[in-house]
Amino acid sequence: MTDSKLNIDRVALEQLLNKRFFYAPSFGIYENVAGLFDFGPTGNALQQNLISLWRQHFVIEEDMLEVDCSIMTPSQVLKTSGHVDKFTDWMCKDTKTGEIFRADHLVEGVLESRIEGDVLARKMADMSVSDGNDKTVATDAASSSKGSNAKKNKKKGGPIVATKLDDSVVEEYRNILAQIDNFDGHGLAGLITKYDIRNPDTGNEVTHPVEFNLMFESNIGPTGHIKGYLRPETAQGQFVNFARLLDFNNQKMPFASAMIGRSFRNEISPRSGLLRVREFTMAEIEHYVDPLRKQHPRFSEAADIKVPLLPGSVQLEGKSQPIVMTIGEAVEKKIIDNQTLGYFLGRIYTYLIIIGIKPELLRFRQHLQNEMAHYACDCWDAEIKTSYGWIECVGCADRSAYDLTVHSNFTGEKLCVRENLSEPRVYEKLVCEPNSRVFGPKLKKAAKPVQEHLASLSADELTSVKNALAKDGKAVVKLSGTTADGEYEITPDMVSIENKTITEHVREYIPNVIEPSFGIGRILYSLIEHSFNVRADDEQRAVLSFKPVVAPFKCLVLPLSGHPSFEKPLLDVARRLRSNGVPARIDDAASASIGRRYARNDELGTPFAITVDFQTADDNTVTLRERDTTKQIRGSVEEIVTLVKDLVSGNTTWDDVLASHQLVNTAAASS
Amino acid sequence: MTDSKLNIDRVALEQLLNKRFFYAPSFGIYENVAGLFDFGPTGNALQQNLISLWRQHFVIEEDMLEVDCSIMTPSQVLKTSGHVDKFTDWMCKDTKTGEIFRADHLVEGVLESRIEGDVLARKMADMSVSDGNDKTVATDAASSSKGSNAKKNKKKGGPIVATKLDDSVVEEYRNILAQIDNFDGHGLAGLITKYDIRNPDTGNEVTHPVEFNLMFESNIGPTGHIKGYLRPETAQGQFVNFARLLDFNNQKMPFASAMIGRSFRNEISPRSGLLRVREFTMAEIEHYVDPLRKQHPRFSEAADIKVPLLPGSVQLEGKSQPIVMTIGEAVEKKIIDNQTLGYFLGRIYTYLIIIGIKPELLRFRQHLQNEMAHYACDCWDAEIKTSYGWIECVGCADRSAYDLTVHSNFTGEKLCVRENLSEPRVYEKLVCEPNSRVFGPKLKKAAKPVQEHLASLSADELTSVKNALAKDGKAVVKLSGTTADGEYEITPDMVSIENKTITEHVREYIPNVIEPSFGIGRILYSLIEHSFNVRADDEQRAVLSFKPVVAPFKCLVLPLSGHPSFEKPLLDVARRLRSNGVPARIDDAASASIGRRYARNDELGTPFAITVDFQTADDNTVTLRERDTTKQIRGSVEEIVTLVKDLVSGNTTWDDVLASHQLVNTAAASS
Repeated sequence: MTDSKLNIDRVALEQLLNKRFFYAPSFGIYENVAGLFDFGPTGNALQQNLISLWRQHFVIEEDMLEVDCSIMTPSQVLKTSGHVDKFTDWMCKDTKTGEIFRADHLVEGVLESRIEGDVLARKMADMSVSDGNDKTVATDAASSSKGSNAKKNKKKGGPIVATKLDDSVVEEYRNILAQIDNFDGHGLAGLITKYDIRNPDTGNEVTHPVEFNLMFESNIGPTGHIKGYLRPETAQGQFVNFARLLDFNNQKMPFASAMIGRSFRNEISPRSGLLRVREFTMAEIEHYVDPLRKQHPRFSEAADIKVPLLPGSVQLEGKSQPIVMTIGEAVEKKIIDNQTLGYFLGRIYTYLIIIGIKPELLRFRQHLQNEMAHYACDCWDAEIKTSYGWIECVGCADRSAYDLTVHSNFTGEKLCVRENLSEPRVYEKLVCEPNSRVFGPKLKKAAKPVQEHLASLSADELTSVKNALAKDGKAVVKLSGTTADGEYEITPDMVSIENKTITEHVREYIPNVIEPSFGIGRILYSLIEHSFNVRADDEQRAVLSFKPVVAPFKCLVLPLSGHPSFEKPLLDVARRLRSNGVPARIDDAASASIGRRYARNDELGTPFAITVDFQTADDNTVTLRERDTTKQIRGSVEEIVTLVKDLVSGNTTWDDVLASHQLVNTAAASS
Repeated sequence: MTDSKLNIDRVALEQLLNKRFFYAPSFGIYENVAGLFDFGPTGNALQQNLISLWRQHFVIEEDMLEVDCSIMTPSQVLKTSGHVDKFTDWMCKDTKTGEIFRADHLVEGVLESRIEGDVLARKMADMSVSDGNDKTVATDAASSSKGSNAKKNKKKGGPIVATKLDDSVVEEYRNILAQIDNFDGHGLAGLITKYDIRNPDTGNEVTHPVEFNLMFESNIGPTGHIKGYLRPETAQGQFVNFARLLDFNNQKMPFASAMIGRSFRNEISPRSGLLRVREFTMAEIEHYVDPLRKQHPRFSEAADIKVPLLPGSVQLEGKSQPIVMTIGEAVEKKIIDNQTLGYFLGRIYTYLIIIGIKPELLRFRQHLQNEMAHYACDCWDAEIKTSYGWIECVGCADRSAYDLTVHSNFTGEKLCVRENLSEPRVYEKLVCEPNSRVFGPKLKKAAKPVQEHLASLSADELTSVKNALAKDGKAVVKLSGTTADGEYEITPDMVSIENKTITEHVREYIPNVIEPSFGIGRILYSLIEHSFNVRADDEQRAVLSFKPVVAPFKCLVLPLSGHPSFEKPLLDVARRLRSNGVPARIDDAASASIGRRYARNDELGTPFAITVDFQTADDNTVTLRERDTTKQIRGSVEEIVTLVKDLVSGNTTWDDVLASHQLVNTAAASS
């Protein structure tokens, strides 16, 4: 269990994130609603930096067509996409109090509590500790140490009761937990009955799970008749614009659209901080590709990237150790379905490493057949290891032609590509042609629907009609779902059904879509966990070691003390940094020692600090401190500002700076 | 009328914006819903650039605390802020068909049609044209020339009927139209009755106007019991976080928070393209300031900026010609209420000029007393002149302490600043102190509420109590809205009411808020109108002359023709630009001449174009063309890429480039 979770002091980290306003529950001074979070100045800047890098890495470098579509979506669009019917979770209710649970979370919580109770019982037996009472309620030490949030974070599976279970039962529970995501409503109902799962707080039985749609609903306009949903993903806005985008791209294929924006999911039970929320920022790419040519023109650039893969076949063997191999090898061995999918896995990997995700805490897990949507032909998740376990942060699916097909079918608008063939395609085809002198007059208003029906028949079906006409002298056509439903008799004089030679100069196809989809909040939280350290010499001093390129604030500017002579040079340095586009924070709180001010900015993850001291007045020099090494150098204001700009933009590194500058000898107090 | 509107060919512009996918109605392949727009690659990039510049100009240079709060807002927050009760428009219905109108738009449309009918009638009389028929229905030439949108854009006031009106009636109508925004429901009802305003399409009467709340409503969570609204502005999320933000700022005042994000207004009748929509991106600053010290530390930087002002006093004189003066002078003369408000007007002006708004098409209009919220003490709109008239694009209001006060009162959370006074404040105050031996035992459970009531009395009220006790030997306290409502008798033994000397070391105050609020979509649309030109030598060739810093795509890369040898250098140039962060588009459509490709990228507003030609293979040089001058120079790939990077970042200008390079002699066809 533990080796699938990152071992960090999450309580300390959460306190830091709250204190330094990375994020906090929205509308916290009101009775706040679960699953909504506000990003403070620190979290917001971090998020913006992740988005900027994403835009540079994907949109600009790959020349994607970035769009910005409406969040409010008329219901029919999401009916067509399948979300109105299928975007649901299973919920059940306490039969007496009416309290609502997400069914899989309830089963999970109760079974986990039982396993923990078993572990506790075995431990107590081992220690030969017995107070003559077989069952003991454990004190909820872990949650009470969380401070003020403890009361709100109810233990989801109820109090842990020390009750020994049979080994086989424990094994059974663990098996269920490992595949809890795969149970549908029926399966969950079975588990609830079989294992007598109840509301842990009341002991009451719960109802059979029913489906709950996860979309927020609203009405558009004053009549109340136009139903809308808040989009649950950015993808549909991109799909419905496909024809415009293809046109913008001068009809050239393949190409990609992209969108960064807010999406909404009305989760039954939000939990795990930023990991399961009701409103979140996502970044999605829809790469449109010819289904017959899934090669990628830049594949060679990704082919040599080594990535840790956990293919379906390995998971089915019950293993969780990823295989490290190059993208090129994985595509060649058909572990990854095609070059385009492989190329994007490589690009996703590079992006995550650039922002500071630790490579050893990152893996690509392939979806098993039963996890995938029926239309998907391959899907991989970039999973990042956190203290909550392996978290899906980026999905990368080949969605085939599903989305464009359903929108095109419903609206009647062509969402397809027409390709001029250099060699025309010539083939034989059985074709039904009406004899207009007889066909129309006989069928009257039904003529057009009958003709369309005949044109839509397969070769086999059309052969049956032809045979019937030859044998019986007639054939019956049955229409349904048209404006002229009913049965119509066709006679041989009305149609000719013959093989014809067809010559096509244009190939028309609906592109397949490869969709890398990024949960920005999840990536942000995982990155914070990976960046969280304590000073080697003082466990109380936490540091967020963000890379300069993602750090929320790039440079701290501070005076050695509250001496009034420091104010002018301080403002001058800050102004110069800001007008160079370097976000700089001043920390001149005279009440705090310089050591304490360094420490609190270490908690913001600020990589550099410029200090104005008494020497500044003499020679206009300042010191520059780097967060992780705590080493300092000295230089003129001009030089140091330029240096910081170069450090932040990646034009130079701190190692280079150290190699070319003399260290300042700092007293312990100011390090 | 016409001189208040920018004279451009809006039909041509709209066709260009649609063709080049700046934006388009959302979900256009479905039956689309009014007031929702998708930004295509061009519009999105333009919007992103406006946002980046905004962030640099305000957030970074002014060290504002940018946050990112939830869109979904629990209803109580917006009940407290006043939006649930007051954020409404007036709507009325056709009494027979039920068709819904925004009441002010209906009145406006009908009166405008009548005035146009009058103009037409007078014109016909002048021309002595008469077909013996007094009333003539004009052909709707203007709207049919709009092409495919004509059917959807119904003439809002009905067909124009040539009917002469009395001069005094025309005058009356014009007066109403000039102040249509100032009528409430009662006033609009009066107009509808007095002028017999009907549904122009059916001739039916309309109902009295009723209030319609403009917020989109939804339910949060699975119970359906938690009502939420989509935020109508970003401000409230900032206000409720005030205490956290002050803390983050180390308790230092003044400071500002800022947010860029989506907001929603369920408009009754969206219209005028991006100008009145249901979902939009806004950027808001909340600057928190001591009500006693509204000076601004950087005021001197804004004091010399000359701005066109239209103060309330000038408007009341019926004038519309702005006064041009410096911010410093306007604040000194109290035309602008205070330094901080003035400083922000200056910064807003600078921002709008930087992005390319034409200074002669920009003015600051002060709200009249009856336009302002009751709590606001001064408010100015930055209005930009467009073909729709003067459009409010930025509001800048002094909201006093209203918002923080109401949220604080409702939640009981202190949203205030505690300032340590250097000199303690000493004053006399009448104070009521309970005698604890008698007070508690006599009043029992009511003791605390009665004591709180007494403490809340004003000096005059407390004096009355003191007098009653002295005269009658008793006083009656009446509680309401407490846990112990009722009347309670107080006797002299229970309290002592005496003057005391109070010494305060801390001053506690609720800050005032200065709020610059930017409608990004409106600014974007206005900027497009200001950038729209046609080539002097060819009116059919439209150009969007965006400054390089806001242009959606910075550089076009194209081959002289479809010759295969151009492909490699083409990709090389594009790759180099993109990895330098310069968004570059390739246009290698072999079917289009180079002139046509230049032209279509002029329509995207792309300022620079690099062309690969036959000479490139020989000496690795390319040409660089600038959009507005259409002049070209030649240089090595490396030099030109660096030059473009510098041009885009503002490190150099095209004039500088022309001064130091020889012009390429271009054939007419390729200009």
